[in-house]
Amino acid sequence: MRETASGIRAVVRCDELGTAPYSDDPAGLFRPYLGAGHAATLDRIAAWMTEAGMTARIDAAGNILGRYEGQSPDAPALMIGSHVDSVRDAGRYDGMLGVMLGIEAVAWFAERRRRFPFAIEVIGFGDEEGSRFPVSMLATRAVAGTLAGQDLDLLDADGTSLATALEIFGLDVARLDHAARPREDVLAYVEAHIEQGPVLEAEDRALGVVSAIAAQFRFRATVCGVAGHAGTMAMRLRRDALAAAAEMVLAIERIGGAGTDDLVATVGRMEVRPGVPNVVPGAVEFSIDIRAGTGAVRDRAAEAVRAALAGIAGARQVTLDMELQQDLKATKNDPGLTRLMEQAVQHAMGIAPRTLVSGAGHDAMVMAGLAPMSMLFIRCAGGISHNPAEAVRVEDADLALRAMTDFIERFDARAAASAQQGTQ
Amino acid sequence: MRETASGIRAVVRCDELGTAPYSDDPAGLFRPYLGAGHAATLDRIAAWMTEAGMTARIDAAGNILGRYEGQSPDAPALMIGSHVDSVRDAGRYDGMLGVMLGIEAVAWFAERRRRFPFAIEVIGFGDEEGSRFPVSMLATRAVAGTLAGQDLDLLDADGTSLATALEIFGLDVARLDHAARPREDVLAYVEAHIEQGPVLEAEDRALGVVSAIAAQFRFRATVCGVAGHAGTMAMRLRRDALAAAAEMVLAIERIGGAGTDDLVATVGRMEVRPGVPNVVPGAVEFSIDIRAGTGAVRDRAAEAVRAALAGIAGARQVTLDMELQQDLKATKNDPGLTRLMEQAVQHAMGIAPRTLVSGAGHDAMVMAGLAPMSMLFIRCAGGISHNPAEAVRVEDADLALRAMTDFIERFDARAAASAQQGTQ
Repeated sequence: MRETASGIRAVVRCDELGTAPYSDDPAGLFRPYLGAGHAATLDRIAAWMTEAGMTARIDAAGNILGRYEGQSPDAPALMIGSHVDSVRDAGRYDGMLGVMLGIEAVAWFAERRRRFPFAIEVIGFGDEEGSRFPVSMLATRAVAGTLAGQDLDLLDADGTSLATALEIFGLDVARLDHAARPREDVLAYVEAHIEQGPVLEAEDRALGVVSAIAAQFRFRATVCGVAGHAGTMAMRLRRDALAAAAEMVLAIERIGGAGTDDLVATVGRMEVRPGVPNVVPGAVEFSIDIRAGTGAVRDRAAEAVRAALAGIAGARQVTLDMELQQDLKATKNDPGLTRLMEQAVQHAMGIAPRTLVSGAGHDAMVMAGLAPMSMLFIRCAGGISHNPAEAVRVEDADLALRAMTDFIERFDARAAASAQQGTQ
Repeated sequence: MRETASGIRAVVRCDELGTAPYSDDPAGLFRPYLGAGHAATLDRIAAWMTEAGMTARIDAAGNILGRYEGQSPDAPALMIGSHVDSVRDAGRYDGMLGVMLGIEAVAWFAERRRRFPFAIEVIGFGDEEGSRFPVSMLATRAVAGTLAGQDLDLLDADGTSLATALEIFGLDVARLDHAARPREDVLAYVEAHIEQGPVLEAEDRALGVVSAIAAQFRFRATVCGVAGHAGTMAMRLRRDALAAAAEMVLAIERIGGAGTDDLVATVGRMEVRPGVPNVVPGAVEFSIDIRAGTGAVRDRAAEAVRAALAGIAGARQVTLDMELQQDLKATKNDPGLTRLMEQAVQHAMGIAPRTLVSGAGHDAMVMAGLAPMSMLFIRCAGGISHNPAEAVRVEDADLALRAMTDFIERFDARAAASAQQGTQ
């Protein structure tokens, strides 16, 4: 029996699942929801779950669940999970590492025949990425009970509906709502995930504790000036839409950078019209993505952006239109669980933990609607994700696993303490 | 007989030629070189030339020429012209107004039975815009004798070669070099053209005298930073290629605006990669177009741009590549003819003339290689050109015609004075 938990196997298993038959793309990793690679992956994970001492099952939405019973058979569960689907040309650790670490955590306790007053369930969500249908977190929402009837009519790129895809996968659409878990079944949801950003690496830390999942605004901005001949339109007479947009990009960058690390503001897309070298641009359309740990910080930044852009448009005599396209509220992680996770990380690493806001969305956003939620971030190389170059150090996976098992111990201790308090 | 020359008919004729059958596009104006609209246009212009007292012919390159003989039959010619082809979705005056004013000027003298010691030839070039083949000024170069053999192999969008297109138009490719005019045939080349820019309008002037056609550089700039997740990449850790490019756009605008009016610098095209709202841009490619009245001014501006962009790239830790794609020397208009044109404009308008640099290319650029050259600019509404909204005031066309006829008188007087000087 191992003295300390080892994350090596979790990483090795992610690598194994990174190619065919676990991928639908023979040249790289692409594991869309309810595809052949997904089916093969669930078989493999089920075997690992069983080997680790769990009872494995696939729910009505194609999620895989491994249950490690508690001291009594029908105890509510501490749920540990993440997603098993992937984007096209994906990395191997996004999502899957969290599932594999869940299995390893259970294996650690099972080897020690350690049972808790609660069950532990490890879950691998079938769809978080929107890997097949034009909506994301379908499988997570099925578990949280927030899937809508019309979601079954969603079509993939080949015109197959979600309902049909579930049936082809061997699932009973009529029983889909059985995937939804009653609140009393789930004590808490915990997710370990690669950071997908560069902050931990820049600060030389293996782990971080997520305090919130960012609030997000997405706008489409349109700037209209006056197009003109690049050779004949004197500079002082121009109303150049691209020069105006350039000033706006810098204002957005400045406002994003003036906040704390959890405020980010990005112009990722820009289209210039007519977009030829010898014409002064007449119109520019660009995206503005603003995220922050709290809605208040995001909203203040968005107001500052609005004001700055309006000022620039006015000074340059161009028109500006800003259309709100997406408005996601922040998800606050459970403060009590976050404190436990901070203690677990401090224990594993021997240094004060870093908390950070997740700028990316996760299954945990949806699961927070069902149960108290906490997240652990694991450093990844260069902050690179959604890319075959995604990389995680095995030492970091080791530390993550140690933090997870320690978190479970603390979760147990807290439950015991509060139960005792209740009986006093 | 009219007391003063009238430009109204020149404008009306441009309007008449702005639709089918003179256009290949029934919905607007598009008159490519050697197309059906071009053929119909030449027939109509030939009739007007004949009516104005000229002998009309079509040369081996599809240019139309009307000759108004001088006092002796084979006298060298003062050539007046511009182009009859158009871009897609064109305005009606770009090029054509210069040809129509040439016909009106001849008509004015023919009505008075006024003959000069030189002939006047009005020419309508078949291709200045590059309206059909991927190279511009093909027909002008045929006259100037600078067409190359391999130009005959150029293909249009349908795969038809220039050689085939000439034959289909009824021209003899074997005789193409007969379109080239010997230097001794052409005393001078004069072109009236809409400004295609906003300077004259901004200064409330109907006419301007062109002092030079701008020198031009065109670069392709590529900025490479590091792409990242828009939600997870902290602002201070970014190497955002678009933010860097935005700073560069503003530097280019600043450098262009720091010179005189004849210096212009434009970023007209910009491509952002990957170009999606939730990814910090990893690379941006954009065009830089720099033009000035002299090569020296253009070169200094390009050096300033290079230095500024290198500084921005260095400070932002992104890479910059600037590839020179086009290098056109400035064309200096003939100083003596320009002086005559200034006097003619002063006479027509009663105010001191404005000289300006043409930022756009013209047939005159090519013809300057064959003969001394001068150009007259006519105000156009909003500086708009290459657009159906192109507009010219008839009063301005009147003034332009008066300046042209006065220029011809002055050209005659100067020739007489220099002949007399020669005989003393």
